[in-house]
Amino acid sequence: MSVFKEMDRDALAAVAKEWETAIAERRYADFRVEVSRYHESEIAEIFECISEEYESRAFRLLTKEQAAEVFLTFDPDRMERIISIVSDAELANMLEEMYLDDTVDIIEEMPAYVVKRIMRNSTKEDRASLARLLRYPKDSAGAIMTTEYVRFRPEQTVEDALTHIRRVAIDKETIYTAYVTDKERHLLGIVTAKQLLISPTDTLLADIMEEHVISVTTAEDKEAVAMKFDKYGFLALPVVDAENRLVGIVTVDDAMDVLREEVEEDIAKMAGMSPAEVPYLKASVRSLFLSRVPWLLLLMISATFSSTILNFFEAALPAVLVLFVPMLMDTGGNSGGQASVTLIRGLSLGEVSGRDTLRILYKEVCVGLLCGLAVGAAAFLKVMLIDHFLMANPAVTVSVALAVALAMLVTVLIAKLIGCLLPLLAVRLHLDPAVMASPFITTIVDALALLMYFFIASTLL
Amino acid sequence: MSVFKEMDRDALAAVAKEWETAIAERRYADFRVEVSRYHESEIAEIFECISEEYESRAFRLLTKEQAAEVFLTFDPDRMERIISIVSDAELANMLEEMYLDDTVDIIEEMPAYVVKRIMRNSTKEDRASLARLLRYPKDSAGAIMTTEYVRFRPEQTVEDALTHIRRVAIDKETIYTAYVTDKERHLLGIVTAKQLLISPTDTLLADIMEEHVISVTTAEDKEAVAMKFDKYGFLALPVVDAENRLVGIVTVDDAMDVLREEVEEDIAKMAGMSPAEVPYLKASVRSLFLSRVPWLLLLMISATFSSTILNFFEAALPAVLVLFVPMLMDTGGNSGGQASVTLIRGLSLGEVSGRDTLRILYKEVCVGLLCGLAVGAAAFLKVMLIDHFLMANPAVTVSVALAVALAMLVTVLIAKLIGCLLPLLAVRLHLDPAVMASPFITTIVDALALLMYFFIASTLL
Repeated sequence: MSVFKEMDRDALAAVAKEWETAIAERRYADFRVEVSRYHESEIAEIFECISEEYESRAFRLLTKEQAAEVFLTFDPDRMERIISIVSDAELANMLEEMYLDDTVDIIEEMPAYVVKRIMRNSTKEDRASLARLLRYPKDSAGAIMTTEYVRFRPEQTVEDALTHIRRVAIDKETIYTAYVTDKERHLLGIVTAKQLLISPTDTLLADIMEEHVISVTTAEDKEAVAMKFDKYGFLALPVVDAENRLVGIVTVDDAMDVLREEVEEDIAKMAGMSPAEVPYLKASVRSLFLSRVPWLLLLMISATFSSTILNFFEAALPAVLVLFVPMLMDTGGNSGGQASVTLIRGLSLGEVSGRDTLRILYKEVCVGLLCGLAVGAAAFLKVMLIDHFLMANPAVTVSVALAVALAMLVTVLIAKLIGCLLPLLAVRLHLDPAVMASPFITTIVDALALLMYFFIASTLL
Repeated sequence: MSVFKEMDRDALAAVAKEWETAIAERRYADFRVEVSRYHESEIAEIFECISEEYESRAFRLLTKEQAAEVFLTFDPDRMERIISIVSDAELANMLEEMYLDDTVDIIEEMPAYVVKRIMRNSTKEDRASLARLLRYPKDSAGAIMTTEYVRFRPEQTVEDALTHIRRVAIDKETIYTAYVTDKERHLLGIVTAKQLLISPTDTLLADIMEEHVISVTTAEDKEAVAMKFDKYGFLALPVVDAENRLVGIVTVDDAMDVLREEVEEDIAKMAGMSPAEVPYLKASVRSLFLSRVPWLLLLMISATFSSTILNFFEAALPAVLVLFVPMLMDTGGNSGGQASVTLIRGLSLGEVSGRDTLRILYKEVCVGLLCGLAVGAAAFLKVMLIDHFLMANPAVTVSVALAVALAMLVTVLIAKLIGCLLPLLAVRLHLDPAVMASPFITTIVDALALLMYFFIASTLL
């Protein structure tokens, strides 16, 4: 087999079909040869296309390396199905192939009876590590770290280190960063494989190790840990306990997973939904419904305030004012959404924090005034040109246009302020700022915009 | 210096202050010793806090390694300022320390006269590579790749390879993945440093190389390239030309940068803003204004349709109907936003594509009906309980409540359909689906919701 490009979905389905045929015709040797032509990550993708009827037989024909790799890409349902059909020996083989942090991820998704089987079929050593890893809070560095790293003592030489790496590399998640500790496992420094390769073999690790090491503690939030990878470009980050003793490492691939999950969670919350656990096409109608309906109901009920305000002013003010309510509400919502989304992302990325509140307020007041002036002026022109002249609506007077324009200005400004203050307030209250996005802001801004509108109109008209 | 935790902003500012004092008092040796106690990534952070008055002197006191690392973290303005004050020799030193892909990133941000100086001070070899790299389209794999990788021939042994790596490692962006090519540079396979370390020294690379290599072409979109890192967990990915000849590699740190930028761009567009180039606190009021006002104006003008519809029906129908317009519009906007954001992210992540349109439609019709029924029922109860009984508004009859409830159901359903169809349509038209998010959908759904509402009301009442 030679180098190839990524396969598209049709190609994957075609291969899956071939494999199914081979199994159906009991040509198991053919199947194995066929499978060996692909990379593990591709075998996993082809397995996505294999029907439930054949998946268990196909899976049991894989080598233990292939099986472990493919298994990790399954969704929880499929994992559970597969674990229920493989023998204890097969399960033990697969677990032996996996890194401990991956096993932890699986265990966290599985029902208790499956967890028991996994624990029973792990080696004694792994079982102890798994039990320890499972004790860390779900969103902490401890929960995403692996305990399979390479560790040296400062008095060892480069040659010792390389010999050791040759012996243990196959079981370690990364050998490209090794950790130097004292007898009590206190982290002293790191040496990279690059450093080891370019240094004379009799050099002491103490002389070449990098002592400026950024480390994280087991309790640190996994999102904060992942951001450090993004910021510093690490391949791995050491995790220490409260006494600065090395207990594990987090690798860049896990950090990327965390970052992706967090972004999707933020985006879902910003759009007023619960974060999805599975890709859209795999999500059931029920789960989509449940993730969306609570916010719709909550926000609909909150809109009662707007109705009440409308009701209150309707009798007292000219009916023509109602014409511009949709325009005012939409602009307010959009304007607030812009500010809140900017702030929410800034907070997520650690670019801004609560202590910047005054600077943020100043900035949003300026931006809000400028946007408000532009939008207000445009609204005045629009009302005059279209409603007053073009449609010749006699009720739309210059005063009405002026009231609409002023209400626009004030609404945009208020929307910007609320849009930036609510996410900051959420942080202060230890809530996720992402829920303070457009849908939520819109509801509040709507009510305020209507109030300002009618107040301005009753003064002017 | 021993192992330490990440510094917070106060600590960084305090160190910056000390450094400034050392420079002001001309204690340059002290400054150098102080600086050497920190990791390059920290020096960069401390430089963030150094005032413009001291930055050029502080910068010129750095070693060339420190200078290169720190320079890369500067924003374009600061880069330009620094380049204008360093000597040609200092610039050449700094460029020598940098990887070519970083130099390309800098060049793309700088005005022409700075680019000329950079080119003039690069080595002849680098100049040729830079010119080649700069020819690739800005968003292609070619533009983010580096040409500094390790390349072998299949007939070389592990020992040859390790000897070569020892010699060249210092100049290469990664040595952890090396590439095996034939004489014409056609990519044949990859060998990892791990593989090299654990294999007997006389093994031929042809025997241990991984031939199942996922590669990308120079023209491929950088976002698609970055997604492959996320999907497969690579540390580096080879880039080939149209004849499958290896021309460069993309490394995981660059892929993470691309992913982050793309996410921020998507989120900004979804909130109806132009993507920001700089972090929020550094963005000028003018740039924030310009990124936000066009969408506000466009959407405000589009809301004219809603006003026109309101205007048309206002005379013909009971005034009480207007009370529920805000609730209807908000719910429609939120409902459509949920669907569109889900689809936009699915498209961005490659989880759904245009060919899934029918499946998506089916799903959204089901979800829309369920959400519509729930929200409609809640609306009916809300109008009856609050407006009819509690506030005892005589105009709010059971028929009105029924009209509102029915309009809610239809609005939610239509919003879901428009929310999922517009992003798919955008892809078909080769537009960015991210602009088809809440603000845009809201405007369309508003007009349709009002139409349906008045149509239903005029039938029922």
